[in-house]
Amino acid sequence: MGSGDPVGSDVGLLAPGRAGSPAESATGDRAFLQALLDAEAALTRAQASLGLAPAEAADTVTAAADAARFDVRDLALRARGGGNPVIPLVADLTAAVETVDAGHAPYVHRGATSQDIMDTATMLVGARTLDLILADLARTEVALARLAREHRDTVMPGRTLTQHAVPTTFGLKAAGWRSLVLDARDRVQAVRDRLPAQLGGAAGTLAAFTAYGTPDTGALVEAYARELNLAAPVLPWHTLRTPVADLAGALAFTAGALGKAATDVLTLARTEIRELSEGTGGGSSAMPHKANPVRATLVAAAARRAPQLAATLYGSLAAEDERPAGAWHAEWEPLRDLLRLVGGAARDTVELAEGLRVHADAMRAHLDLTHGLIISERLSAELAPVLGRARAKDLLTRAARRATAEDRPLVELLAEEPELKDLDLVALTDPTQYTGSAGALTDRALERS
Amino acid sequence: MGSGDPVGSDVGLLAPGRAGSPAESATGDRAFLQALLDAEAALTRAQASLGLAPAEAADTVTAAADAARFDVRDLALRARGGGNPVIPLVADLTAAVETVDAGHAPYVHRGATSQDIMDTATMLVGARTLDLILADLARTEVALARLAREHRDTVMPGRTLTQHAVPTTFGLKAAGWRSLVLDARDRVQAVRDRLPAQLGGAAGTLAAFTAYGTPDTGALVEAYARELNLAAPVLPWHTLRTPVADLAGALAFTAGALGKAATDVLTLARTEIRELSEGTGGGSSAMPHKANPVRATLVAAAARRAPQLAATLYGSLAAEDERPAGAWHAEWEPLRDLLRLVGGAARDTVELAEGLRVHADAMRAHLDLTHGLIISERLSAELAPVLGRARAKDLLTRAARRATAEDRPLVELLAEEPELKDLDLVALTDPTQYTGSAGALTDRALERS
Amino acid sequence: MGSGDPVGSDVGLLAPGRAGSPAESATGDRAFLQALLDAEAALTRAQASLGLAPAEAADTVTAAADAARFDVRDLALRARGGGNPVIPLVADLTAAVETVDAGHAPYVHRGATSQDIMDTATMLVGARTLDLILADLARTEVALARLAREHRDTVMPGRTLTQHAVPTTFGLKAAGWRSLVLDARDRVQAVRDRLPAQLGGAAGTLAAFTAYGTPDTGALVEAYARELNLAAPVLPWHTLRTPVADLAGALAFTAGALGKAATDVLTLARTEIRELSEGTGGGSSAMPHKANPVRATLVAAAARRAPQLAATLYGSLAAEDERPAGAWHAEWEPLRDLLRLVGGAARDTVELAEGLRVHADAMRAHLDLTHGLIISERLSAELAPVLGRARAKDLLTRAARRATAEDRPLVELLAEEPELKDLDLVALTDPTQYTGSAGALTDRALERS
Amino acid sequence: MGSGDPVGSDVGLLAPGRAGSPAESATGDRAFLQALLDAEAALTRAQASLGLAPAEAADTVTAAADAARFDVRDLALRARGGGNPVIPLVADLTAAVETVDAGHAPYVHRGATSQDIMDTATMLVGARTLDLILADLARTEVALARLAREHRDTVMPGRTLTQHAVPTTFGLKAAGWRSLVLDARDRVQAVRDRLPAQLGGAAGTLAAFTAYGTPDTGALVEAYARELNLAAPVLPWHTLRTPVADLAGALAFTAGALGKAATDVLTLARTEIRELSEGTGGGSSAMPHKANPVRATLVAAAARRAPQLAATLYGSLAAEDERPAGAWHAEWEPLRDLLRLVGGAARDTVELAEGLRVHADAMRAHLDLTHGLIISERLSAELAPVLGRARAKDLLTRAARRATAEDRPLVELLAEEPELKDLDLVALTDPTQYTGSAGALTDRALERS
Repeated sequence: MGSGDPVGSDVGLLAPGRAGSPAESATGDRAFLQALLDAEAALTRAQASLGLAPAEAADTVTAAADAARFDVRDLALRARGGGNPVIPLVADLTAAVETVDAGHAPYVHRGATSQDIMDTATMLVGARTLDLILADLARTEVALARLAREHRDTVMPGRTLTQHAVPTTFGLKAAGWRSLVLDARDRVQAVRDRLPAQLGGAAGTLAAFTAYGTPDTGALVEAYARELNLAAPVLPWHTLRTPVADLAGALAFTAGALGKAATDVLTLARTEIRELSEGTGGGSSAMPHKANPVRATLVAAAARRAPQLAATLYGSLAAEDERPAGAWHAEWEPLRDLLRLVGGAARDTVELAEGLRVHADAMRAHLDLTHGLIISERLSAELAPVLGRARAKDLLTRAARRATAEDRPLVELLAEEPELKDLDLVALTDPTQYTGSAGALTDRALERS
Repeated sequence: MGSGDPVGSDVGLLAPGRAGSPAESATGDRAFLQALLDAEAALTRAQASLGLAPAEAADTVTAAADAARFDVRDLALRARGGGNPVIPLVADLTAAVETVDAGHAPYVHRGATSQDIMDTATMLVGARTLDLILADLARTEVALARLAREHRDTVMPGRTLTQHAVPTTFGLKAAGWRSLVLDARDRVQAVRDRLPAQLGGAAGTLAAFTAYGTPDTGALVEAYARELNLAAPVLPWHTLRTPVADLAGALAFTAGALGKAATDVLTLARTEIRELSEGTGGGSSAMPHKANPVRATLVAAAARRAPQLAATLYGSLAAEDERPAGAWHAEWEPLRDLLRLVGGAARDTVELAEGLRVHADAMRAHLDLTHGLIISERLSAELAPVLGRARAKDLLTRAARRATAEDRPLVELLAEEPELKDLDLVALTDPTQYTGSAGALTDRALERS
Repeated sequence: MGSGDPVGSDVGLLAPGRAGSPAESATGDRAFLQALLDAEAALTRAQASLGLAPAEAADTVTAAADAARFDVRDLALRARGGGNPVIPLVADLTAAVETVDAGHAPYVHRGATSQDIMDTATMLVGARTLDLILADLARTEVALARLAREHRDTVMPGRTLTQHAVPTTFGLKAAGWRSLVLDARDRVQAVRDRLPAQLGGAAGTLAAFTAYGTPDTGALVEAYARELNLAAPVLPWHTLRTPVADLAGALAFTAGALGKAATDVLTLARTEIRELSEGTGGGSSAMPHKANPVRATLVAAAARRAPQLAATLYGSLAAEDERPAGAWHAEWEPLRDLLRLVGGAARDTVELAEGLRVHADAMRAHLDLTHGLIISERLSAELAPVLGRARAKDLLTRAARRATAEDRPLVELLAEEPELKDLDLVALTDPTQYTGSAGALTDRALERS
Repeated sequence: MGSGDPVGSDVGLLAPGRAGSPAESATGDRAFLQALLDAEAALTRAQASLGLAPAEAADTVTAAADAARFDVRDLALRARGGGNPVIPLVADLTAAVETVDAGHAPYVHRGATSQDIMDTATMLVGARTLDLILADLARTEVALARLAREHRDTVMPGRTLTQHAVPTTFGLKAAGWRSLVLDARDRVQAVRDRLPAQLGGAAGTLAAFTAYGTPDTGALVEAYARELNLAAPVLPWHTLRTPVADLAGALAFTAGALGKAATDVLTLARTEIRELSEGTGGGSSAMPHKANPVRATLVAAAARRAPQLAATLYGSLAAEDERPAGAWHAEWEPLRDLLRLVGGAARDTVELAEGLRVHADAMRAHLDLTHGLIISERLSAELAPVLGRARAKDLLTRAARRATAEDRPLVELLAEEPELKDLDLVALTDPTQYTGSAGALTDRALERS
């Protein structure tokens, strides 16, 4: 950071989860500024395309609409006056156009209100960032599919309320993570495809456009949206904030979906468990044995923050009038934060999934930690027909208690029971043979594309 | 509340927004208990339908699964031991079945885990409550469509940042409210159609079902879902919480969508504005002039709470293992709260929309509050070609200042300007003639069904 | 639940964390109703104490103000009309008083507004519940102090980012939990001591009391507060919601403070770690080996929910006018939920702390899981003076790699290094001798009372 | 923003509420970097002060610890590896020290862990920003006290649920705003005075300091805190997050406290009400009549966001182990956001309060909007002794209905009633004479300092 830069700026020092990510670039102030300018230029071009402005004016405005030529910090400071950055930006853009051709200046921002430009820019930034997120979700999905296939039959303890329950497979776990990633992808894609341009004028009636001679405001809205590659809205949505709420929901979902995998990795990477480890754990100079699951940590941190950011955005749905005093302004930073938080988490999850190391031997070893009791559910089911339910339960309870107390495998204790001599106890108590439909479920989940 | 009732119970005293609503009944403890029992009975019937249990056992369990025969408070107290109500419920249901036919008892809850029943019951309660909400959204939509049509050309001030901006119509405003209601309906309906049954067994592998002899667990899951009229999931979703997160998003959206209309009503019902009033305002005995917008108040209160409840649910996506220690438990009450909060708000919005009184005369009168400046945007546009942009702006700024200072209508002041003598100033400054595309937008929005 | 009970009621089925707790009783609808009645009776008594009402009227109102004589569900339903339960309650209380002495009826609710009674009742319920919470925090503190003292020198792995870092002691951990409990106690106690009565009349000017002849409204407010054992406020706080926000903060803090201990217990109770276990874990009939950490799970669930409930309450600070349309109504249920959630968590933490079993042998054994690398930080510090920093680092890095690869203890590998032959490697690599100031810190923390 | 700057950076474009504020500078990445360096330098100096490092090393480190000499963006990017910026910073600081005197390099960060430095820096930034906030709260308090005194007897409508209730005064309203500002000040000051330094080493036992020869780690912690002007903690608080939660609570409270005044201004500045206006409203070029309440809007926006940011911080209390994997990382940005959001809101509130224009004539005029019914409460009280309660109520209800229907003042209608001929109806119905204890309450509230 050079000495001429604003002292209050944020370049990512507190944000290792997104620093350097494509989503960060796509959502920075300069990217927002460019999106604001893109919206202005698209408006003039749309008017030109309908004969409402000279084609040359559209060219001039488009050429002038280059973020590199504006001082973003100065705009930020001047935004204080009217409470949004579009007001000073229109002044600067008009001035820039005037230096080329004063006659083109009236076609800058003609008929629009600040919110038209601000909301449209937000949707542009949203669309660009969602595309990045979708690309990373796609890579993650591929990596997880590979893990699920490779470990379709890698048996590990299933855990509930922190305790071993019955066996499961790592393939099923990875397939589950992948299904959440696909759910996220579907939600993000659906929202992305609907992101609309905003054009309504001062109070959403498009009246100024009419005053400036627009015969068909619907055609103008469509031309504008087309220029921007955004959807054309049925109504101006200055205070009908469906697009913002939809973004909130899809992004909070994605953060949580990625957070599920990260949370599992954090658990399974514990020193005592180490069934998984990150490809490249973060080290510690003083403690060379540490291989911190840093990627999972940062994704988990994002998952902790996203829901509350989304809550603020959902809260802004209840916006009064034709433009609210506060609810709209409260959206800007939380929405940007959500985009870059999830964008960063998507990047980290790619690295996590592609680099994940699976320690099948540790998984296998842990199945024996409960002296074989991890298959007690199976024995309950299988012994009942042989012994009767009550007797089976009684025998199992006793055996379980002894296995723990005497530190002996359950199978040994059961082998001492004459009533069970006809059963293949070794097979019955083999945890790797009690995975139910894990394999079939994994296969089925992998069919989804 | 009789003396035998639990002292800590909640019968709605702090919840006028939902007390007595269908959503409240559909989400109460008794309704939840019935849903838990419905899930248990469906499981036995599904097994019977595949020959895995005697048909008579299914009949016995189904007959026993009547919430009226269980003590819900006692179950609540006993739920403390294992941390969920299914554990004591299975004991009681098994005991009830045993009194009929001890041989049927083993078919209660056979192969299932508590979470299978709890999650399924939650989806049942969700489905039943969403249906109530959808019905109320449908009534609201009809009422708002009527208002939009009737007031298509009722002109009122458009307001931004609390100040009059340019005219709009009440028709457009009502059409906007309706579009949000339709957005809510679409989101709720999509979620409702996907709500899945839950069946996975102890750790989501369906292993116990296999141990009990189920040849095709996929068929069992499908039969179970069919019995419940819920969707059959691809995977057990014990820790893949898409259905819960989807409910959170759709409900938070709906609360906010209804909150938008309520917020506008609260503003426009103010004593000084009174462009709208509720059909039956809440009164005050000591202050007979008060007609409080109570319905709007309660809807607004719901809109303030829903986002944070949804945030808790989104936060539970990052759930560790095959059943988490806390994230799952943290869902139950917030999800129920969201359902009944939104269910109550949907009821109140029906009353609000159907009873809303529109005071078109007040709307018209307010258009003159700014001495005609509410159409200054139009004049900027129309005078520029006549006078040149700079001159037009100068003239308008002066006239605006004088109109306010001298308390005179803008049209009078403009009439004194010789340069404008050829313009039809009366028409140009008539706020009812500056509504832009409000009518066309209203028509277009009403085409959506 | 008998057949005559409201079908929508909540008796705790979804709330094992608070079902049956004293906090649940103290916050139920019946308790709230009694608090509302207590506020009404206190108001009449306060007026009587200043000669503004007959002493007999105060007696009559006080006698009538018995929750058992009112129908709480009926009140809940009638609360819909005006949006709060005080309106119908005043009608019923007045009717009850009239049946005794019609002349006393005018002294019911004389001069007050609904919010005076509602807010005062909330503070009463708050005070009563905070007292219960404080009692449970006190018990927890004692139990944790005992654990900290007993395990002052019980060495265990210190863990950061899920990985073993350096040794610590369980005493220090327990002392840390206790310090959070004391922090919670201090915050709760401070808020509890300040909880104010509410009395302002229709718009907070106390005008009606003057109209009814009160010469000194300040004296009335003080008499009223004294009757209720609440603080007397400087100003009516209808829209100055400091007391509610303070409750939100103290309760969210307490939930999190208890959540810290619960989270640690959940981690350390994992099957692979089992350094701690709950006194009475929740069992599973099909899986007899499971001892679920149920108390910790329920406390963790409360800690996940409390912050968002507090957020709603903080959000209600920005309340318009002399009584807001929504912000006030949005407080009622979240505040009650917070009180009972934290009240339940405080109860569960008592059981958790008093029953916690500490497996010092497992803690000791885990210190060796990293082949001695858990003391690599110490070796870095101690070998640098002997070998020089670079050489020491190099040697340690190599040894660490070999220890892991060859599955040998670090001390063995170091013993092969001639340069280190003069060091007491056994002592230097003994993890139980590298606990730094853990003991002293524990002692110091225990001095706080 | 020059072309060499990071494209993803945030210089305030979306944040008019804080752009250019002192709080923004105090919380920017450069300020954070300086605070990190201050912490490092203080640690070496503290060690030197106890003879554990050469005084020259402390000088060298202190001289090197100048943020201007480090590349903050590069640090942000390298922070990804280990998940926090201290790791690369220590490398760079060590390198910088080495260029001066290689022998001083070992005294950089000696014994500390990243979290020691990060947490301490956060407290430093917190302390510096809270001081700015306190200064702005002090200015606001003065301005509000002046308004309260000046308008002690300026009568205006008291409003509840959006409707006129009974008269109040603007003095009482301003005194109420001030009392919230003082509550905020007290809470912020209490937290500020307690902000602690952090020093615990790898797992909070201070073991490395002992290994490096520190005889009394308690003395070291105190020396370190003294160097930083922060409080010395009893225990390392790596996972005992009281300081962070306290900041969250005080800041969320302050945002809401300021939000209350802002919300009232927004309401009372409405075009139809205009009892208040901002000193310099934000304008609109196309709509010269608009004077948007921009300061209030931005403060209201901050009040909408702060509670959810605080919720994330409260949620991080439940942090596992000796350093959590996610909960800690999730604190950094939300805490900074809260500081700058509230810092910006405090600045805007100063401008709002100092510039606020009070339109007493509009307030007076509005008292008549309800045809005198705004004093119906008083009449209920005063007529009951004259006419009997039932008769008084009946007469008033009729008169109220007629007043509204016939658009006549209540006093006229009452004058027609023979029974009331002895009453001074003009005085009784004068709203400016029905302000109860508003004046006395204002005086009393102003006594607080």
